Order: sequence, then C-alpha cells, then structure tokens
Amino acid sequence: MTEAQHDALRVEVGGAAPYAVQVGTELLASLEVPQLARALLYDERLPASLVQSVRGALGPTVEVALPSGEACKTLAVMTEVLSRLARANLPRDGAVVGLGGGATTDLAGFVAASYLRGVAFHTVPTTLLGMVDAAVGGKTGVNLPEGKNLVGAFWPPASVTCDLGTLDSLPAWVFREGAAEVFKHGLIADATLLPRVLHADFRAGGPGLARTVADAIRVKADVVTRDLTEQGERAFLNFGHTLAHALEAVTRHGVPHGEAVGYGLHYAALLSLAVGGADVTAHTRSFLAWQRPAPLPELTFEDVWPFMARDKKADHAGVRFVLLHEVGRPYLARVPEGTLRACFDAWRADVRGMTGADMNAEEHA
Amino acid sequence: MTEAQHDALRVEVGGAAPYAVQVGTELLASLEVPQLARALLYDERLPASLVQSVRGALGPTVEVALPSGEACKTLAVMTEVLSRLARANLPRDGAVVGLGGGATTDLAGFVAASYLRGVAFHTVPTTLLGMVDAAVGGKTGVNLPEGKNLVGAFWPPASVTCDLGTLDSLPAWVFREGAAEVFKHGLIADATLLPRVLHADFRAGGPGLARTVADAIRVKADVVTRDLTEQGERAFLNFGHTLAHALEAVTRHGVPHGEAVGYGLHYAALLSLAVGGADVTAHTRSFLAWQRPAPLPELTFEDVWPFMARDKKADHAGVRFVLLHEVGRPYLARVPEGTLRACFDAWRADVRGMTGADMNAEEHA
Repeated sequence: MTEAQHDALRVEVGGAAPYAVQVGTELLASLEVPQLARALLYDERLPASLVQSVRGALGPTVEVALPSGEACKTLAVMTEVLSRLARANLPRDGAVVGLGGGATTDLAGFVAASYLRGVAFHTVPTTLLGMVDAAVGGKTGVNLPEGKNLVGAFWPPASVTCDLGTLDSLPAWVFREGAAEVFKHGLIADATLLPRVLHADFRAGGPGLARTVADAIRVKADVVTRDLTEQGERAFLNFGHTLAHALEAVTRHGVPHGEAVGYGLHYAALLSLAVGGADVTAHTRSFLAWQRPAPLPELTFEDVWPFMARDKKADHAGVRFVLLHEVGRPYLARVPEGTLRACFDAWRADVRGMTGADMNAEEHA
Repeated sequence: MTEAQHDALRVEVGGAAPYAVQVGTELLASLEVPQLARALLYDERLPASLVQSVRGALGPTVEVALPSGEACKTLAVMTEVLSRLARANLPRDGAVVGLGGGATTDLAGFVAASYLRGVAFHTVPTTLLGMVDAAVGGKTGVNLPEGKNLVGAFWPPASVTCDLGTLDSLPAWVFREGAAEVFKHGLIADATLLPRVLHADFRAGGPGLARTVADAIRVKADVVTRDLTEQGERAFLNFGHTLAHALEAVTRHGVPHGEAVGYGLHYAALLSLAVGGADVTAHTRSFLAWQRPAPLPELTFEDVWPFMARDKKADHAGVRFVLLHEVGRPYLARVPEGTLRACFDAWRADVRGMTGADMNAEEHA
C-alpha cells in the first residue's frame, strides 16, 4: 500500500459482493487491479497525462477511447466496444476498468456486466458526479432514444477509486453540476451536507473536500448495501430524478445530468409541499442559486410528461415520485396528474429567474 | 390448474431464485404469467396457430415477431426490441415471455435481463434443443461477429413451459439436432439416456418422450442449481461445445447448433481418449450415425483454432476443454496444441464418412 492509499478515506459497501471506495489524492499511479488481463475504457477527452498515469499502472491488454460523456451511452457504442474486447481475446477472468465521468463508467460497467456474461469491473470516476453517484451501487447501462438508462444491469464494481486530483482539470460548472447529487444525499439522509455543499470549495485539496465526498458516498453506500436492486428504499436515491431524466430526454441530453437533477430537486420539493410535506423549497432554491445551471428551452408539461411516464419507478398502475415528509424522511407515492401539472407550472416560473443565464453562458461554451 | 398442467412432469431448479420446469402437452392455451403487463417475443416463423394460442392466454401488452432462429441474436435486433418495449411503456413489474427455439429464448432472456435493468422472464421453448438446453440455467445472450454467445447475462427465468405439442410442427432433422444435447447430458451424467436417445421416437406423444425430456432437463437443472454462474461444474455442460461454437462461428451459423454439438461431442471424445480417458468414441460415432448432420465445408485446424481460443472457458492461461474420464465423469483441462491438432485431423477423417450428406440434403432444404 502506498502512502497515498494509506491516507485515503475508505467507504465500505456491503451486500452479496462487498467492495470498498477509496477517496483521496495521488491514487491513480498506484492503481491496483488483481486481474491479469485488463481492458481500459476511458473518455477520449480526458487529459492525456491522466490516461497515461492509469495506463502506466495497469498495462492494459486492450484500451478503447470512448466518445466523451453521454454520447458513449448507446447500444451502438457498446456493440463496437464488445467487439474490440472479443478481438483482443479478453478472457473471462479479465477485468474492465472504466475511467471517466458517470456516463463513461455507466457504459464501461454495462460492458463488464455483459461481456462473456460478466467480468470484473473496476471504476475510476473522474468527476464529482461520477464519484458520489455513478461509482457506487452497481447501476450500469445505456440510453435508448425513448429515454435515459432504460437498458442496463446491476453489476457492482470490484473496486472504486476516487482520486480528487482528477477534478482539477475540469471547469467549475462541472463541480457545481455534480454537487446536485451531494445536495440530494443531504436532502434525503444527511442534513449536515446541505451547508457544506453551499460553502465548500470543491476544488481538489479544498478544505474538507475528501470528507464531504466520502460522506456523500456513504449515504448512497448505506442505502445500496440494504437494497441493491431497488426493491425498496434505493428508489429514494432518485429524489428529483423523475423530472431530471425527462429534461435530459426531451432536450436529447442538452442538459447535463447534474443540472437536470438540480432542476428536478426543486420540482420534487414543490410536489412534496403540495401533497402535505414540510417546505424544503428554500433549500432547493438556495441550491439552484448556487449551482447556476444553464437556462432551459421553453417547455410545457405536455413536453415532459411522456418521458416522466416512462420512468423506471413506474409500474402498471402508473408513475411514482420520491417525495419528502421533511429533510431526511423520503417516501414513494403516486401524485395526481393535476398536482403534477400545477407544480410544473410553479416550478417553471421559479426557475426562469434562477438560472445562470447570461453569466454562465461563457463557462458552458 | 388445468388437467394438462396436472399431468405435466415437473423439474425443480434451485438456487437463489428457484423455478419449475413443466413438461407435458396442451400447456400453451392455459399458460399463466403473474405479471399484468407482458411483452411476447416470438420467432416469426412459428405456426400462426401456436402463436395465437399463447397470445390468447397472455393478452400481451406488446408483441414483437423476431427474425427466425440465430438471426435474432444480434445487438441490432436487441436494440430494436428494447425500443419497442420502451415505446409500449412496459413497466418494471412487467414480464418478457419468449416463445421459440433456443435462439429466440436466448435473445428474449437477454432483453428481459437488460430492459430497465431486469424484468421477469418466462420462457416457452418450442424445440427439443430449446427445452433441454436453453430453457434451464439462466444463460441468455447474443452473438458478436467475433463469436457466439460472447455477450449476455445470467438471468434465470421465472417459469419454463415445455409443451411437447410444439415439436409436431418441426421437421425430423430438428429433433435429431436437439437430441445432441440430450445425448451430451447422457455422456456427462446419465448413461441411461444414451440408448433412449438412439431408440426413442422424439415425435410428440412418442412413448416415453416426456420422461426422456424431463430426465435430460433434470441433468442440467441439478448442475445449475449447484453452480449458476459457472464457477465450477457447470462448465461440464459445455462438453463438445468448444469445437461446436467454433464450427458455428467459422461457418457463420451455417451449421445448426445441435449438429455442431453432435460433431463437437465426437471431437471431445477423441480428445478425452488421447489424454488417457476411457474410449467413449463408440457412443459419439453411434450418435452421429443416428443424427445424420449436414456435411461440413472443408475446414482446417487453422480455420477453427482462432474461434476455439476465444471460447468463454478460456482464461489468461489459454483455452480449457471439458473431457471425460469415462461416461458420467467429466473434468476440465488444458490440452497441448499438438494433441488438439492431431485429434482435429482424426475427427475430420472420421466425420467425412458419417454425415447425412445426400440423403439429408432434401430435409435441410
């Protein structure tokens, strides 16, 4: 174990196949994977030095540069990657290593789950979103034209390595994007995270960053340890996500996931209030004011409703939402369509005034 | 329970999610699936009356006719099927029902495993091969251009319904094809099956058919109950399959799976003998003489070796074969390339004289 690994924070994830998440700095160059044959799948836009560091540690049997971000999450890309692994004769006792943001690791995980009916998966998230959301819990998958994450597998990783140094290469809005999932974890389970998100410096090495990231991961780790395949409480992690997924789908992923979640958290807060819960909209308003997401195109309830209806939390009786009785007390319920529509209009009016709009345009460009 | 269901033989499959296989006649019209929303995926060349019978019992939410046989086992077909399910809003508590031969149910099972990260799967095999091999054990998947079954998932069905009446509509060579897996189960675990294969009438209603099919299924059920994900003895079910898969790949599925297995059983018997096992080649010769597979194109060891090397039983140290000490005593071992090559040449000379050749051409047309 290197000194950097020794200093890293660890979060344990339990269940049928337990694994550990490491959170620290300078972890990449000493990345260890027990399997002798390795496929390295990485986001093609990662800094070359970062990829080279992992390449040096792994000595991959085969490597595939993936289209950057959400563009890799298609069955067409997956088909090509699987063929590359087959042509390299990656064996059943080999491993797939995913290096990149949440989209990259979602695709890499589904490749690992499906290639030869499943090989070991190691994930190395390089974005805050990837660390606090995608890396833990074993959800992998790709999108369909009909909606996001409609295809995939539960395939927990063998290891998760969160090197905070990877965050340095990304623009500030990407941090604020990923912070939506940290804030969400605060809303459903750990109120102490809420002020830490709004005041912490998410730049690598900023005070308390490793602790905040590890605590946000722990919220998810505890939930998925108890409920891997979303029979119950795991659904709570989808707080804010029903509208978020619809916004992503209707804009064809023009809205980054974390900003869609930021928007979705406020809609879920409005719904929670409308059906009798505590008013947590001050929190979600504060978050949006801090996150400054890019403005949305003009959208009506009719635009997003077909995508919300296709949400994975739907069953034959209709779509269900994660709501809050109050901070830390989530529950799952159906909401009358009239309420969904009224809250959508209220949400639409609210967020018009709260986005980054002009001041953010330059950063997003 | 209907009278037909009452009379059906049952084989129990254990493990984390136990299920039962029913073997009998007149089971389709009373097929029962607990999930309220159902996607029916079926082979487009099935007799219309057979599909109509299942349609009447299920009242499917959505149905998709699949390209017949192995042609459906591609990621392109899978992509289209998944989109059809999404457009129909098939919910997470819905079910996929696969109706057809082993290829159809392999594809349907992988769709069930992947759609919304997994919905219930019910399988209704309509070929002997599908009943005794594909239906039990939870292996699902598709092919890549690089080889057969290189992509998939372990996704055990919720139920398996083997209606022997479905076999009536198929030509005789399809029965003889499927019998290769029955014979293989005999070789690895139940010597009583060997003479029953060579003397039984595989037409529906033939004396003892249900019992023979149920006994062949039981061999596999017992193995997969103990070892679902092929950590150990499940690999024995691949006796004869390393060459079989290579023959299928190199001919681009010009050889039907069961005939490839018939050929592969004889090669595996020759290998077993060459490395010191008992001589079971009289059995595999008898089987080939009975099965009368279509003749193969001219093939050299160099043609098939790259595909054997890509076998899923390979690990980083190379390809492994299932061999027999004697009937009922399989084991897994590496074989020197010189032995593989010498046995290939012996096998090639043997099978040249044993195929159906001319007499079979008409039936295969």
